[in-house]
Amino acid sequence: MGTLSPGEQPLDVTRFDVESASDLLGTWVRHTPVAELERGAFGVPGRLVLKLELLQHTGSFKPRGAFNRMLTADIDETGVLAASGGNFGLAVAYAAHRLGHPAEIFVPSTSPPMKIERIRSYGATVHVVDGFYAQAFAACEERAFDTGAAFLHPYDQPAVVAGQGTLAQELGDQQPTLDTVIVAVGGGGLIGGIAAWFASDVRVIGVEPERCPTLTAALAAGKPVDVEVGGIAADALGAGRAGMIGLAIAQRYVERVILVADDDVTRARRLLWDDCRVAAEPGAAAPLAALLAGGYVPQPDERVALVVCGGNADPADLAAAASDDTD
Amino acid sequence: MGTLSPGEQPLDVTRFDVESASDLLGTWVRHTPVAELERGAFGVPGRLVLKLELLQHTGSFKPRGAFNRMLTADIDETGVLAASGGNFGLAVAYAAHRLGHPAEIFVPSTSPPMKIERIRSYGATVHVVDGFYAQAFAACEERAFDTGAAFLHPYDQPAVVAGQGTLAQELGDQQPTLDTVIVAVGGGGLIGGIAAWFASDVRVIGVEPERCPTLTAALAAGKPVDVEVGGIAADALGAGRAGMIGLAIAQRYVERVILVADDDVTRARRLLWDDCRVAAEPGAAAPLAALLAGGYVPQPDERVALVVCGGNADPADLAAAASDDTD
Repeated sequence: MGTLSPGEQPLDVTRFDVESASDLLGTWVRHTPVAELERGAFGVPGRLVLKLELLQHTGSFKPRGAFNRMLTADIDETGVLAASGGNFGLAVAYAAHRLGHPAEIFVPSTSPPMKIERIRSYGATVHVVDGFYAQAFAACEERAFDTGAAFLHPYDQPAVVAGQGTLAQELGDQQPTLDTVIVAVGGGGLIGGIAAWFASDVRVIGVEPERCPTLTAALAAGKPVDVEVGGIAADALGAGRAGMIGLAIAQRYVERVILVADDDVTRARRLLWDDCRVAAEPGAAAPLAALLAGGYVPQPDERVALVVCGGNADPADLAAAASDDTD
Repeated sequence: MGTLSPGEQPLDVTRFDVESASDLLGTWVRHTPVAELERGAFGVPGRLVLKLELLQHTGSFKPRGAFNRMLTADIDETGVLAASGGNFGLAVAYAAHRLGHPAEIFVPSTSPPMKIERIRSYGATVHVVDGFYAQAFAACEERAFDTGAAFLHPYDQPAVVAGQGTLAQELGDQQPTLDTVIVAVGGGGLIGGIAAWFASDVRVIGVEPERCPTLTAALAAGKPVDVEVGGIAADALGAGRAGMIGLAIAQRYVERVILVADDDVTRARRLLWDDCRVAAEPGAAAPLAALLAGGYVPQPDERVALVVCGGNADPADLAAAASDDTD
């Protein structure tokens, strides 16, 4: 993969930015634990470590970026704006609530009513916009133009990417001998932050559902392109278009992006529950899915971290899994 | 609380026994992670730490004792026996499978078919005994007498208690400045092992549902007594009669045992899910329930570990909790 000179990437995020974010975040976010698993766990090679980021506030990694953006932005009484009916919307509403900023969240009318209610429960003003994510995003941009409130992009702002990267700094402290980290990709904010931190020190591998091949398409085209998204992890990983920042970092530091079938994601999610009682959302099970499907085969002694990046799915889905447990 | 001389307690378990168990267990059990929570978590004082033992093999702490008992016993081709339709039955079946011993598990006909299937899935021979736990236990004892197979008691054998104590040794390594540990009590095996390890170095507090006051009754009577058990955590905590070993250790080293209402357990379980995406079984939420109900009020700087000792409950119960999330 080619390299890009700094001049071409004014929005670059570096290890230094991640370190600054980590200093700023302090105790606003949780340091989430890691679980070291035994050899042979899940029937795959390598020495697996689960980064249990689903224990983060609001149930996903998203508050890291949301807090860092708010703590570095100039925010007046008009507050903050974001478009998301999912994990980012929750995180922005939560962070704004803790920092005392008014928040307006634009959610598509297709979002589950339960998630909309949770966003509202943090005190945010929720605008339900007819249509899909694109319509909510457009309405949010328009509102930002009108009011001057601080707009938070879910994955393509430097402070957001640097904030997500603090997960990697934490993981590196917890696992100093880590060889590889595998992480699900939506718009590229999390993998961008992680790869910015680890650079070439740790192998960074991305995983996308076959039906959300956003970064795969962007890497192939050499630029963000619109892709059609769907499948069981689309609520969290269906960004539709990769971010410029994440793409540029991925071009330099991400070894590869693996595509996985929805069935493998479902299988991985069930195994995480059956063998570890970890209730991952589908997208957060994608890294294990890549191992189960043989998309990446670790060496026997390779220390591999799987980022379990969220747990915002209906746990009732796992009930059937428990009854199928045949470990 | 009175002290007992060693002569009165031939079945005593000490810190040395826990250390030996830890050496033997090696990688047969998982070292489960801890999550340090922020000040103000769950709206209670103190600096809370969750010991995430639900990530242990089979979804509860029970393999620690089962492995230690099997690794220290003389087991021939007749294998091992246990009576339990719940977490201990799962753990014995699992440990026997890994160690290559035949296992027969006696389960009451009142056990959920799903749990019976899971026990069977580890290759154990399951005997379904008409009636309740007492009937299954009697049938198991009879079988042990007939075959000479190694009988595993769920909580009142020294090797079992010492094995459970390895959780405390691990926790102490993870949290060297721990002040207090709060743990649910069934028959007294886990709290016995924990208190044997920490002795007077860390405050050990037990929690029982009001409807399973087994250790409370034993401490009041000065000996194990039969109690009627029921309520939402009875499947895991409804031992009905405390063990001699756990009682003797509790008399020396357990500061107090708190009774909690089932409603507080339900509330605690929901909070663990809503705020941390930890899917505890009801019994494993009892320690947090004690804090929520004010049964124990930590000092502002007190470092308090809550043992989340299992996750073997239907996660579908948590779906409603997610929709009620108003954090």
